[in-house]
Amino acid sequence: MSQNLTQTQAFARLAELAARPVSLKDSLNAQRIKEYVRHNGPLEFSFATALVDTPVLDALQKLSDEQDVIGKYKRLLAGDLVNVGEKRKVLHHQTRSLSDRGMYGEEQQKIAAFCEKVHSKQLIGYTGKPFTHVVQIGIGGSDLGPRAMYIALERHVKSLKGTLPLTASFIANVDPDDANHVLSSVDFETTLFIVVSKSGTTQETLTNLAFVKQRAKDSGLTDVDLKKHFIAVTGKGSPMDDPSAYLASFYIDDNIGGRYSSTSAVGGAVLSLAFGADVFESFLQGAGVMDQCALDPNIYGNIALLSALIGLWERNFLGFSSKGVIPYCEALSRFPAHLQQLDCESNGKRVNMAFDAIDYETGPVIFGEPGTNGQHSFFQKLHQGTDVIPLQFIAFKKPQIASDITTFGSSSQDKLIANLVAQMVALAVGKDDVNLNKQFPGNRPSTLLIAEQLTPAVLGALLAFYENVVMFQGFLWHINSFDQEGVQLGKVLTQQLLADSSDRDPVLVALQSLIKD
Amino acid sequence: MSQNLTQTQAFARLAELAARPVSLKDSLNAQRIKEYVRHNGPLEFSFATALVDTPVLDALQKLSDEQDVIGKYKRLLAGDLVNVGEKRKVLHHQTRSLSDRGMYGEEQQKIAAFCEKVHSKQLIGYTGKPFTHVVQIGIGGSDLGPRAMYIALERHVKSLKGTLPLTASFIANVDPDDANHVLSSVDFETTLFIVVSKSGTTQETLTNLAFVKQRAKDSGLTDVDLKKHFIAVTGKGSPMDDPSAYLASFYIDDNIGGRYSSTSAVGGAVLSLAFGADVFESFLQGAGVMDQCALDPNIYGNIALLSALIGLWERNFLGFSSKGVIPYCEALSRFPAHLQQLDCESNGKRVNMAFDAIDYETGPVIFGEPGTNGQHSFFQKLHQGTDVIPLQFIAFKKPQIASDITTFGSSSQDKLIANLVAQMVALAVGKDDVNLNKQFPGNRPSTLLIAEQLTPAVLGALLAFYENVVMFQGFLWHINSFDQEGVQLGKVLTQQLLADSSDRDPVLVALQSLIKD
Repeated sequence: MSQNLTQTQAFARLAELAARPVSLKDSLNAQRIKEYVRHNGPLEFSFATALVDTPVLDALQKLSDEQDVIGKYKRLLAGDLVNVGEKRKVLHHQTRSLSDRGMYGEEQQKIAAFCEKVHSKQLIGYTGKPFTHVVQIGIGGSDLGPRAMYIALERHVKSLKGTLPLTASFIANVDPDDANHVLSSVDFETTLFIVVSKSGTTQETLTNLAFVKQRAKDSGLTDVDLKKHFIAVTGKGSPMDDPSAYLASFYIDDNIGGRYSSTSAVGGAVLSLAFGADVFESFLQGAGVMDQCALDPNIYGNIALLSALIGLWERNFLGFSSKGVIPYCEALSRFPAHLQQLDCESNGKRVNMAFDAIDYETGPVIFGEPGTNGQHSFFQKLHQGTDVIPLQFIAFKKPQIASDITTFGSSSQDKLIANLVAQMVALAVGKDDVNLNKQFPGNRPSTLLIAEQLTPAVLGALLAFYENVVMFQGFLWHINSFDQEGVQLGKVLTQQLLADSSDRDPVLVALQSLIKD
Repeated sequence: MSQNLTQTQAFARLAELAARPVSLKDSLNAQRIKEYVRHNGPLEFSFATALVDTPVLDALQKLSDEQDVIGKYKRLLAGDLVNVGEKRKVLHHQTRSLSDRGMYGEEQQKIAAFCEKVHSKQLIGYTGKPFTHVVQIGIGGSDLGPRAMYIALERHVKSLKGTLPLTASFIANVDPDDANHVLSSVDFETTLFIVVSKSGTTQETLTNLAFVKQRAKDSGLTDVDLKKHFIAVTGKGSPMDDPSAYLASFYIDDNIGGRYSSTSAVGGAVLSLAFGADVFESFLQGAGVMDQCALDPNIYGNIALLSALIGLWERNFLGFSSKGVIPYCEALSRFPAHLQQLDCESNGKRVNMAFDAIDYETGPVIFGEPGTNGQHSFFQKLHQGTDVIPLQFIAFKKPQIASDITTFGSSSQDKLIANLVAQMVALAVGKDDVNLNKQFPGNRPSTLLIAEQLTPAVLGALLAFYENVVMFQGFLWHINSFDQEGVQLGKVLTQQLLADSSDRDPVLVALQSLIKD
């Protein structure tokens, strides 16, 4: 079935249920907390503090069935052209398939072999020194995901292996201060650059590539020297697929969108070089396990589907327009920024799969910072602001690094978890007070993802969980989560301005003249 | 006058005007762009792409007059107890006063003298080595603002002075992985630690202090050694104001809230140590200039007031519930996270100055990432999502570092600005297309702050601009922007959980048992 959300039978039922909202103040108790937990692979999902009850969950199950969410997922996996706007397949799941990874598996094998040569010092820099640093030049999906994953695992791999095979930095912004700053902290002799652009034509990336090459030449490197320091991740046959300029090329294709490319060569090259191909393989395995779990049509057996449905309930029936993702884990400090791209670029849409306008809300504003930091920042608004903002918390039973300390009778890890639990309960239950300024309204919902420890496999599981949540919501909303037509107009207008011809739009020119030196 | 927003005469007029919305698609032209610009100090403010026209702006001026916004600001400056909940003065403007800075000026002089001793190697570490690194231990306002300011100026000062007097790191999160990670990159012999807590009792900060001291002792430092490496920024007489444990103490007081403390000793110590007291003084001067400009009751002469009113128009009359702040400047990468705290913690309130509930929306969700990066992330939703999300862009005519490169006929800086202009026009004007998937609805508003270059003075001006915007919006909404009662309940419940007594709330215990190892 392919239909708008509002055309489903479940829609009317859910709208009815929304009129008599669940009260967490009345219903949250130890029993509910024990019952409202499900797990998939290494992840547990607690939804006791969400604004749902059995009738709501039953209706959400019916909505999922009516929209044939799992059927759509299976057709996606089978290679149907589910990216209807661009008439493309959607194959990012194949990069971490537990059976056959096709060309993506072959590319990752090439990457692993290349890493082995770098890590064993068979491949070295132009002055004969081994590589100690890798710099990824890319933007959007070629930056946010890989960068967030690198930050997430940097501490863990360092403590596992004693040291990182290579340390990594990232250049993304066309702002020249970005490349200048990163280059000030690396040495060309010992640095390998990865240039990432599927089309081989991304303006920012080509500009930063030229910038880095120019600075290298200024430092005395010849073209022959340069080639020893650059590898490409790009589409086969793209302008960047050029063996004369790159030591190696690893391929991606049009069936994987940038924001879904962390498990492809886009993340594979930099993460395998920095951490070792073994670590990246664990990451892929963790993702693959969650993709399998996501096949269950029963919402109680499929936490990505359950989370997707709760999000839709909050957005379309309870009317909440934004969502916070709060990892109680410093290593996930940039994970919310990646999810912001993943969600907003996938489901920030107003046209359905048949290219007709829709009359209901799609993807919310996604934002987040790690806890406990956020508690000392925007949590005031979460507790006492005029809007209700649903949250998804992420927590781990153990820190990434074994070293902890007991102060004031508890470990730092215990304090971290106690803070998280206190926030969830304060939001859900609130507190009365005759002084309204000290009153907490309560009934502010959240959900919680839990795992043992943030290992590579668990990070892969988390990433796949969120990718599948976004995919399921797209199916439920009957929109295409895999194109991004909304970025095109800006590109066209930018080119018009930079072309510097006489027939440029006077509005563009007038605005530009305000800022141009 | 002290009254709710909805009680003003201007409210009804603005509600009327909102019913016949301004169309940017019809009205945006070169003339409007030239006319809708005002400047204060080093900042220009363009509002040609906001959904306002002369009748709206006139009504906003009346609203400002009715709510006596400038009168309230003057009473705040005069030391009235405008933080009514806590019965405190609000004195952060005094830290950068162009005339008398009172005790804050004295503290900054003490800091400058201390820095001189560190920079001249008169004060050295326990093994006789000079300090090369400073680590700030603090959370919330003691972390986000100073950290964002450090990142904003790091590149600039490095290029001005050749090198930073000291490099800085920050430990905030109670997650033990945070402190472990930072400590893995510094050497106790050459590192000075600044411990920042106004009350001297902040749980995370005391925990991280104990953590760092324990690790130092494990490395063989004695208590006498330790004292040479720790300074305190705290309230006079707080438990942390202890000359036996700290080399020096610099004071703040209850009249400056954490989120407003970047220009006090909270930012002053770390930024003066890292950059030099001269750089911090320029930063204060820049802020002071904007505080002066903010005294003008005429909205066309006071860009902070104008921006505050436009924000309120978008929030309360056009119904937009979130706002993006997008600096086209990599150095401002963490500035939106600071603004998120500043705005959400100040104006995420539902009770007015008389402690009565209000029936209109207050502070929106604030989020943001630098451009051009954001274009490849959540901008899809901004252009084609189902919600309208007003944006505030920030841009500079020159990069921070002189080095730039011309590729494909334009410099990186030119490309950066062309991208920004293209986004503003695409959002405002949109584009028709028979394929709805390629259609851009337009009429999506933004404003733009422009300065010549991101120098210390300009950063100070930007910070003060935003602090004053938030203050003015609080005055307009008739709420107290200077307390944060919404963070209290979580603290109480955390302590209850950590107390480990037998009468803990079973809901807290049940949730904790899901996560506890």
